[in-house]
Amino acid sequence: MLKTTLNAAAESVREEVIEWRRHLHRNPELSYKEEKTSQFIYEILQSFGDLEISRPTKYSVMARLIGSKPGRTLAIRADIDALPIEEENKFDFVSQNPGVMHACGHDGHTAMLLGTAKILSGMKDQIKGEVRFFFQHAEEHFPGGAQEMVDAGVMNGVDFVIGAHLMSDLEVGKVGIAYGPMMASTDGFWITVKGKGGHGGMPHDTVDSIVIGAQVVSNLQHVVSRNIDPLDNVVLTIGKFVGGEAGNVIANSVEIHGTVRSFDEKYRESMPKLMERVLKGITEAHGASYDLKYEHGYRPVINDEDITKVIEETICEVYGDETVERLKPKMGAEDFSAFQQKAPGAYYHIGARNEEKGITYPHHHPLFTFDEDAMEYGVNIFVNAVFKFLG
Amino acid sequence: MLKTTLNAAAESVREEVIEWRRHLHRNPELSYKEEKTSQFIYEILQSFGDLEISRPTKYSVMARLIGSKPGRTLAIRADIDALPIEEENKFDFVSQNPGVMHACGHDGHTAMLLGTAKILSGMKDQIKGEVRFFFQHAEEHFPGGAQEMVDAGVMNGVDFVIGAHLMSDLEVGKVGIAYGPMMASTDGFWITVKGKGGHGGMPHDTVDSIVIGAQVVSNLQHVVSRNIDPLDNVVLTIGKFVGGEAGNVIANSVEIHGTVRSFDEKYRESMPKLMERVLKGITEAHGASYDLKYEHGYRPVINDEDITKVIEETICEVYGDETVERLKPKMGAEDFSAFQQKAPGAYYHIGARNEEKGITYPHHHPLFTFDEDAMEYGVNIFVNAVFKFLG
Amino acid sequence: MLKTTLNAAAESVREEVIEWRRHLHRNPELSYKEEKTSQFIYEILQSFGDLEISRPTKYSVMARLIGSKPGRTLAIRADIDALPIEEENKFDFVSQNPGVMHACGHDGHTAMLLGTAKILSGMKDQIKGEVRFFFQHAEEHFPGGAQEMVDAGVMNGVDFVIGAHLMSDLEVGKVGIAYGPMMASTDGFWITVKGKGGHGGMPHDTVDSIVIGAQVVSNLQHVVSRNIDPLDNVVLTIGKFVGGEAGNVIANSVEIHGTVRSFDEKYRESMPKLMERVLKGITEAHGASYDLKYEHGYRPVINDEDITKVIEETICEVYGDETVERLKPKMGAEDFSAFQQKAPGAYYHIGARNEEKGITYPHHHPLFTFDEDAMEYGVNIFVNAVFKFLG
Amino acid sequence: MLKTTLNAAAESVREEVIEWRRHLHRNPELSYKEEKTSQFIYEILQSFGDLEISRPTKYSVMARLIGSKPGRTLAIRADIDALPIEEENKFDFVSQNPGVMHACGHDGHTAMLLGTAKILSGMKDQIKGEVRFFFQHAEEHFPGGAQEMVDAGVMNGVDFVIGAHLMSDLEVGKVGIAYGPMMASTDGFWITVKGKGGHGGMPHDTVDSIVIGAQVVSNLQHVVSRNIDPLDNVVLTIGKFVGGEAGNVIANSVEIHGTVRSFDEKYRESMPKLMERVLKGITEAHGASYDLKYEHGYRPVINDEDITKVIEETICEVYGDETVERLKPKMGAEDFSAFQQKAPGAYYHIGARNEEKGITYPHHHPLFTFDEDAMEYGVNIFVNAVFKFLG
Repeated sequence: MLKTTLNAAAESVREEVIEWRRHLHRNPELSYKEEKTSQFIYEILQSFGDLEISRPTKYSVMARLIGSKPGRTLAIRADIDALPIEEENKFDFVSQNPGVMHACGHDGHTAMLLGTAKILSGMKDQIKGEVRFFFQHAEEHFPGGAQEMVDAGVMNGVDFVIGAHLMSDLEVGKVGIAYGPMMASTDGFWITVKGKGGHGGMPHDTVDSIVIGAQVVSNLQHVVSRNIDPLDNVVLTIGKFVGGEAGNVIANSVEIHGTVRSFDEKYRESMPKLMERVLKGITEAHGASYDLKYEHGYRPVINDEDITKVIEETICEVYGDETVERLKPKMGAEDFSAFQQKAPGAYYHIGARNEEKGITYPHHHPLFTFDEDAMEYGVNIFVNAVFKFLG
Repeated sequence: MLKTTLNAAAESVREEVIEWRRHLHRNPELSYKEEKTSQFIYEILQSFGDLEISRPTKYSVMARLIGSKPGRTLAIRADIDALPIEEENKFDFVSQNPGVMHACGHDGHTAMLLGTAKILSGMKDQIKGEVRFFFQHAEEHFPGGAQEMVDAGVMNGVDFVIGAHLMSDLEVGKVGIAYGPMMASTDGFWITVKGKGGHGGMPHDTVDSIVIGAQVVSNLQHVVSRNIDPLDNVVLTIGKFVGGEAGNVIANSVEIHGTVRSFDEKYRESMPKLMERVLKGITEAHGASYDLKYEHGYRPVINDEDITKVIEETICEVYGDETVERLKPKMGAEDFSAFQQKAPGAYYHIGARNEEKGITYPHHHPLFTFDEDAMEYGVNIFVNAVFKFLG
Repeated sequence: MLKTTLNAAAESVREEVIEWRRHLHRNPELSYKEEKTSQFIYEILQSFGDLEISRPTKYSVMARLIGSKPGRTLAIRADIDALPIEEENKFDFVSQNPGVMHACGHDGHTAMLLGTAKILSGMKDQIKGEVRFFFQHAEEHFPGGAQEMVDAGVMNGVDFVIGAHLMSDLEVGKVGIAYGPMMASTDGFWITVKGKGGHGGMPHDTVDSIVIGAQVVSNLQHVVSRNIDPLDNVVLTIGKFVGGEAGNVIANSVEIHGTVRSFDEKYRESMPKLMERVLKGITEAHGASYDLKYEHGYRPVINDEDITKVIEETICEVYGDETVERLKPKMGAEDFSAFQQKAPGAYYHIGARNEEKGITYPHHHPLFTFDEDAMEYGVNIFVNAVFKFLG
Repeated sequence: MLKTTLNAAAESVREEVIEWRRHLHRNPELSYKEEKTSQFIYEILQSFGDLEISRPTKYSVMARLIGSKPGRTLAIRADIDALPIEEENKFDFVSQNPGVMHACGHDGHTAMLLGTAKILSGMKDQIKGEVRFFFQHAEEHFPGGAQEMVDAGVMNGVDFVIGAHLMSDLEVGKVGIAYGPMMASTDGFWITVKGKGGHGGMPHDTVDSIVIGAQVVSNLQHVVSRNIDPLDNVVLTIGKFVGGEAGNVIANSVEIHGTVRSFDEKYRESMPKLMERVLKGITEAHGASYDLKYEHGYRPVINDEDITKVIEETICEVYGDETVERLKPKMGAEDFSAFQQKAPGAYYHIGARNEEKGITYPHHHPLFTFDEDAMEYGVNIFVNAVFKFLG
């Protein structure tokens, strides 16, 4: 049976996948600087034969596997960039690039997708339609490589898109899925409250920007508590508030910086308007003025119900029902959402934590790593899903 | 010497002054309803001879004493109205008018000024210029009788104006004076915050007037703490806040009512503007709207330095330096200020408290009264001041 | 086939169900006063034979149909009380009880359940296990009849419980279901902020309860915006804020009344603590004190996934997939939740709106009514579900 | 007549006073570093003869002139330190000490007092009692040299103390005086609001110090608007508010720094308590904690009525009534107040502005200077006042 064949195939690439991952881990590159990484991917993909390989953008790679029979097109995405973190791990494949580290598992994602491509490129005759492999640069850095690849046309003709993330908060052996909302949108805002500085003992000759800025902060709480449908989920956080230099001088202006997260596009349109209404009103109430810069970041990852269903069935068939974990949405962000604008898609989590092996550090930690056994789950689900999607 | 003569004169009218006072105390009348009171005053004044008596308004009385020689004109004012309070005193001249009481001492003010008029009307030959006696209705009720009398022309030709209040917080034997600010202006405001009511579980479909009203209250605090010169003295108090009917229904609107007090006319102009700025900003910040009604009440009583000096000298000469008390300004209001718009004036306090006699209740209390000995001080200072002012 | 038989059965009771409903509509009774209503139900149930009928509480009725074979027990609930509303409908079965009206459709719920009981009581031989019919009093009035029935033991031995509501915002022909959260919990709170009243011009001698109450309102917004998991759904609304009597007198105390709604029991425990923390802190910050009364109302209606699945399948089998509507949770409350504490259950909505017939008024409106055709859906789904649940 | 003699004397030292001032201006020294300045003063005083010269502290100088007849003791104070400002003036006696400048006129104060000492030391025989000359270091830098001199005993036996400041906002030819409050006290406070940082999308796992800090700022406004007697004058200003580093990370803590100014010692005791009450309440309301450091700075300069009267009379006699200007109190601070704790005193302003000569820059400005003609006024009033005070 196909499933057994595929499982065997996944096992067959196991050593290579680990080797590729370790090579990548040793040689991490920051977002938008994935020069050697993309070259490495390119060369390995070439070695498989039968793939149409291209560079949709400077440092991304796409490989197309055209099946022998006509059919639909499934895209699978891995992200390839590393982070500006100084690694503190002690194993023998630690980063050779000071201050740069694969601290989020993208080395694993890349290796899993290479393994998947290798297996499938040997099965061209059995494939109906097309499989596209996206090796995406710059996931860690807004505006993100996903949108750039989409703009380069990689999603043209794609019917469904999937992607997976190795997760340090999920035990190896589990796969986490979510129907609908999975990851939040993340917008940023920068506010300047502009008053009029002056002598601390003569407030009536000034416009006290700190006092007004404080009211801005308080009144912005009402946006969440009163203006958002309580059945929806929106966060507005102010992470930075800086104003003034001396205790006895009234500050001329205040800088406020924060983030807005939600799972619904409608709030990405309404939030800047609601915030501006508050800002305008509060500053005018006290004779001040303001600037607001509101920047849209990554869209929310909203998983298509049908696509997620196929992923869930694939996992159940390959590993059994108990492997599946239902996840609550998360307030983190992912630019996988850019692909989902063009075709229904699903994103899921592959358990990579292993307490016995001491693999428990969170993502973005200098001691982060993942259980390499998790990658076999990743490859196996990818290859099985291909046949489920394309038939 | 004149002083001695005058003191004797004051003593000579003592019994009559007490009698008049008790008659008035038995027959109190509310503001704008001083029918019998003004008639009583009118008739007594007539009995003195030599006075030109008129009724500037329906229930006020003015008497003019034209001296035998030309000179300047001093006006002396007493207020004549009572309060809507049910008297609880037990003495034999308690109010015969249920629910109405002379609980502020205006009966005493009237009696003292009648006594003064009696003494002076017998000294016409010795007077240079003119003394005008104002028996003013409606001091206790905005807009007040003082402005009406001024509008009727009583201040035409007046060079200085004085007035005195019997005070239950000052021992009999003391006279309280203040240079400059003495009593505050009192303005009132009525705010409606207009939101949009609705289901308590669906705030996003409403405009929550209570939450916005609360921000109005908080942000109005900044007007005092930040927009007023800290060297000036302004109070903004919200005495009433009413909104909503049920806990689970968002209120459509909120009513806010309060008072503003200060000692500087400039704030009577700037406060409504500052308040409106806050109201407009805060309501717009949250999508609501507002109404503001700001009503100017009595002006501040600001005592003229020179006039006050004359009063102080009079007291010192008649009773000695230790009789004078310097008062801090008070946040209460007095429409004596209306007269001060037309001529320099001074208002002062005559001690009327007597702990030994148990006379300690505050003004406007159902057990309020004053030590009748205080009235002799009142008369004596008035008559002496007349000669100091007119020479 | 059974389904066909059952559909025919539902049709067969159609006229009687309508008749019962109209009788009930003519004779509405308020919560806790359902004397004649419960007697009417009791007598009709008796007429069916084969039911064990009891009165768990004074005005509720329970009927037990023990099947001929052993098995599990399904309870079906209808609520029977009316509302204090003056009916404005003009049809010939309008309320004969002035000021009382079946303005929420409970007359229909009762009639549907009577029809269901009639059909099933004739099919005793085909039933495995037991069907219990709950005719519950006092749904409209906290603390509600459901909890009283539960306390009386009606849920003992029950394996699953279902209930349905005729809905005026859903077209007849549709049935609305929700997996998980369906209706919110509704708690109430009553706050007194206790300051110290005084003269509006002397705030320093007072503790200004309005200003402090306003800060309580503002700071309570933070509970929602900062202390609630943004992935959960909680509303805190203040519907009433009343303090003070005159604009120039500082208010002694303020009364604040509101509601808290959520879908998670954990917030019913944490919200009063979070609110008390805010209240205590804010009042102490300004030298005031407080009282807080927090009253737990109805629990949230959280539908069991499996039970809901059975209901969905029943609907699909009887009427087809297009009849099913997925509902968002609602912020309204239902004491059906009390039964769900004892056994897994599901609550769903039966479309009863009909624009063509002009049946569009919302629940609790004086012109509310529902399309009587909806009741056949109700009966049909109940009887079919019985066989799906009990086999 | 003495006055004429004294005026002539003042004129006689005019050139020397200017010379001394220019020498000091060329050689400014910062607070607590007045090494050469104090040595210069010491040597000049020695040259006068008849003075008992000492160094109460390292860089201050005191000279005592014991009159030939017994009597009372008057102290006259000058401050001698400069500021950390880079001078931008172009005249030929600009600062030779880079980054240090006599930008407040203390060079003038010192020269005036030296001139006064010179004149008086030649008139020993005519003096009853004693004149003490205080050349005080470190006025510009808290905790200030005045307190140190007082602690060293300079005020022992002093009956009255006076001091004067050359002022760039008052025309030369005017002398400004104030009865009672003249300069404010200046206290400083440093607040840390301690929350718990965390992920910007998960506020419920954090304690958001910025939001709480904003409420601290808003609630502190109530201290001024509600807890201070509106007839008193207190300012509470927050000049600095700094919290957080990134927009999407909730800040662990916030630093707030500000100043409190008033004219009444009672507020220096009550303000830190009122502020702590607010801080404790607000932080506890939201699960945070706080640190408050409140530091008492200079006391208010409250001029003694009698001493001020003597100064006013001196000015009137020497220059005429029109020279006197009544000043409103100022929110700036002066450590002259330290001397006033030990004996009644008065501080006044000597006009030093001259628009015609372009001398208009404010104190502490790199182009600040004063009209040297003003110094003759200073000397003349000092010497005349000596005879008025000592008889």
